[in-house]
Amino acid sequence: MGLATAFTDLFGVEHPIALAPMGGSAGGALTAAVSRGGGLGLLGSGNGDREWLARELPVLVAESAGKPWGIGFQAWAVDDGVVARALEHEPAAVMLSFGDPSAFAERVRGAGTPLILQVTDLEEARRAVDLGADVIVAQGTEAGGHGARHGRSTLPFVPVVVDLAAPVPVLAAGGIADGRGVAAALALGAGGALLGTRFQATAEALVAPATAKALVEAHGEDTERNRVLDIARGSRWPDRYTARTLGHPFLDEWRGREDALAAAPQARQAYRDAVAAGEIPALPQWAGEAVGLIDDLPSAADLVATLAVEAEEALARAGRRRPGSRG
Amino acid sequence: MGLATAFTDLFGVEHPIALAPMGGSAGGALTAAVSRGGGLGLLGSGNGDREWLARELPVLVAESAGKPWGIGFQAWAVDDGVVARALEHEPAAVMLSFGDPSAFAERVRGAGTPLILQVTDLEEARRAVDLGADVIVAQGTEAGGHGARHGRSTLPFVPVVVDLAAPVPVLAAGGIADGRGVAAALALGAGGALLGTRFQATAEALVAPATAKALVEAHGEDTERNRVLDIARGSRWPDRYTARTLGHPFLDEWRGREDALAAAPQARQAYRDAVAAGEIPALPQWAGEAVGLIDDLPSAADLVATLAVEAEEALARAGRRRPGSRG
Repeated sequence: MGLATAFTDLFGVEHPIALAPMGGSAGGALTAAVSRGGGLGLLGSGNGDREWLARELPVLVAESAGKPWGIGFQAWAVDDGVVARALEHEPAAVMLSFGDPSAFAERVRGAGTPLILQVTDLEEARRAVDLGADVIVAQGTEAGGHGARHGRSTLPFVPVVVDLAAPVPVLAAGGIADGRGVAAALALGAGGALLGTRFQATAEALVAPATAKALVEAHGEDTERNRVLDIARGSRWPDRYTARTLGHPFLDEWRGREDALAAAPQARQAYRDAVAAGEIPALPQWAGEAVGLIDDLPSAADLVATLAVEAEEALARAGRRRPGSRG
Repeated sequence: MGLATAFTDLFGVEHPIALAPMGGSAGGALTAAVSRGGGLGLLGSGNGDREWLARELPVLVAESAGKPWGIGFQAWAVDDGVVARALEHEPAAVMLSFGDPSAFAERVRGAGTPLILQVTDLEEARRAVDLGADVIVAQGTEAGGHGARHGRSTLPFVPVVVDLAAPVPVLAAGGIADGRGVAAALALGAGGALLGTRFQATAEALVAPATAKALVEAHGEDTERNRVLDIARGSRWPDRYTARTLGHPFLDEWRGREDALAAAPQARQAYRDAVAAGEIPALPQWAGEAVGLIDDLPSAADLVATLAVEAEEALARAGRRRPGSRG
């Protein structure tokens, strides 16, 4: 079984499914589980925090059963040393998202390691091709967590990137949480799908139990893009990136007033006090629009298999022809 | 040939493709061409203007070659008399978009005419099911022209509506301009796709030549949702609807300052003067994000056939399994 694409061929994985390297929550256990399930797990290393990597990498290596896995970074948050240290662990891929990856592309490719670059618009896609990306992730604005403030939607964005990048394989990201979405990605010409929110809601994700529960209960309409929570928590994320999150009262209070919040230290302190008191979640509850399709908390390895079966079924059903038709 | 779905079965059409009933531009010739090509043409009657219908309906009837076609209205802009007169022409469907269709559903269904309702969020989808819609169109925010100010993206929205509405067939709308997008819609579980911008860029659409040219040249990044142009031209569209358009200098000047524009009669007069002088287009150049996939101005009947062939090819390619796999 298994849908064959240029992406599955490149990495020798069974299914055209990758784990979004969500900073912090895509730890060693989740990454290993996705790879064991036949997808490509990508460790969410974020800014390359040494302590976090020292904890998660051994788990990943121990649990990945020899299957290929990669490491993902935020380009704006890392330096050459971080990327060089990651390469020492011989990942099957290094993925860079958010910001200019130009300074790191040669080092990754020079190590013979496949380079995955995530893009959010046509200009970034052109740059990724010029940098020699081995895989390009086309991320739409419906994605959970961080993304471009002025983003594209996945459905019309993916085929444009596919045409631009060919023959480089493209992964569709943003708005995909079941096998139908994976099937749609392949129909658009992508070599696979990269899923974040769906994998946050698994047994292995490093998320608070209350957040996992909230993901199961939420609808797509409950998500919104904002910078309010990054400002409130004093995050270093550049202001050209918003994050799609679930809502709560502090967000209701400050929606659309980001500049005012930035200039209101007392309000930011009130946010931290509310977090400390457990009145609002310790971290923003990052969630994409496809959260409405999530209603369970499976193990990630089982989930990959389920997604793959659903995708095959969706394509078989979609390709049904009228009885008596030729072709 | 032809991909069979609950939608194609319901209307007896060859392809799972419908024309978005774009007010004004989806006239009789375009609607007839889509129906002749094997899709479902839907006349863009908007508010039911009698003069426009008196001109376009005879063209539609004369050119549709006996194929099924329907009529679309904006729910906020019509009254019972408008819908009743439309039914006298025995359309194969009546479609209502934007606003509460409750007052018209019984009249349409009572006439034995299939009722198509377009929805932009979960609440509208539930209402459409309750009203007994025969087809539900799930419209994403990447669509061209008018849509919900706080809309959903098509890729994650469609499967949620499919699950909610089953067994009522769903059409995916917004962000689809080639056969890959049609294939993706089917993979998501939809019974077909409803396309607007792609059909604006055809020989039969009632659009200015300069607009047709602009659609061929534009990228998705050149589109944006705004109410600026509706305010400038004194449109009656309710303010919960924005419209996705191509840009121009007046829009650059007033972006994000809708309230200020509404309070500036001189600025609105300047817009109308610039239109009169031919400095900016007479109508907003409505365009969806998928405009970047458009690079020709074919006849609409040929286009339907091309889309159908591309969709079948996309599904066949996407469903390719690894050699030696079973299933």
